[in-house]
Amino acid sequence: MKAEAVEPGEASTITAAPKRGINRGISIADLILRGVAVIGTFASALAMGTTTETLTIFAQPIMIRAKYNDLPSLTFFVIANSIVCGYLVLSIPLSISHFIRREARITRIILVIFDTAMVELLTAGASAATVVVHLAHKGNANANWLAICQQFNNFCERLSGSLVGSFASIIMIMLMIIASAVALSRH
Amino acid sequence: MKAEAVEPGEASTITAAPKRGINRGISIADLILRGVAVIGTFASALAMGTTTETLTIFAQPIMIRAKYNDLPSLTFFVIANSIVCGYLVLSIPLSISHFIRREARITRIILVIFDTAMVELLTAGASAATVVVHLAHKGNANANWLAICQQFNNFCERLSGSLVGSFASIIMIMLMIIASAVALSRH
Repeated sequence: MKAEAVEPGEASTITAAPKRGINRGISIADLILRGVAVIGTFASALAMGTTTETLTIFAQPIMIRAKYNDLPSLTFFVIANSIVCGYLVLSIPLSISHFIRREARITRIILVIFDTAMVELLTAGASAATVVVHLAHKGNANANWLAICQQFNNFCERLSGSLVGSFASIIMIMLMIIASAVALSRH
Repeated sequence: MKAEAVEPGEASTITAAPKRGINRGISIADLILRGVAVIGTFASALAMGTTTETLTIFAQPIMIRAKYNDLPSLTFFVIANSIVCGYLVLSIPLSISHFIRREARITRIILVIFDTAMVELLTAGASAATVVVHLAHKGNANANWLAICQQFNNFCERLSGSLVGSFASIIMIMLMIIASAVALSRH
């Protein structure tokens, strides 16, 4: 009877071994993705936030200065990226804790909830900024909005570049949500 | 010994009963949220897609017509809402199948993956449209983009209204993702 009681326990450790291996892999992937997303959002916020161009109009003593906060959408982009970057840094300890407590359920669900909210915020910011950058480049003839990138060339190039980090981070956070769902399904 | 073998089985059915009840509740919530999101995205796409205003300029034989596809962001909004609406309709049978197979894991993960992708698409569309509608209302003095809503008043009011359904649907799909994560954690 004692021997029988041990057997089911042994069987469960055998089947649990590959399960734990996969969950460990998911935990590592989650941590790496989180790290990359931190860098992406930080770079985006920094690149957009420090973009400025001063233009001296020929034959006139007027200086025009273009800055990201001339356009509310770009300000939103910087704020959204900063918030998400801050959240991701704070979430790293929780992500590390999943290495130790692989069976953690509540903390994983909390991460899914916040990750979903944050990816929404980041997408809204990136999308809003993309529309404005596109309008700055091309303008819109129907609404009589003229392109401003002929004058502010460097400014516009830098704006376009700073979108990249944000979009990369969106993909990372989406993969993190999917990874969390897979990890949760393995309990 | 026989009596002992039955006991654990009975105990597991007792603990499984509330678990199944919660999973049933989650399945019902998922279906309702999906239905509401279908209506929301459909209404948004329809409201934006049919918005048009023809303006006859005083003392001139010129007619100006404003339509949603004058602005690429609004076209994207209509397309994004249509795609998400179509996806949600197609996903309803899968959602219903979770009533019968409550232990379904793979289909729930598939739903999480697609829900995440679709909510991103919808958020990008809604955010882009919001920026353009805001610009149409307020304009931007720094970029010399003038507000066009003084002329096209009805057009602009309708545009603002059609954003609501889309934002409501975003919240519904976010709740669906969180519900799926909770359901997956209960296996």
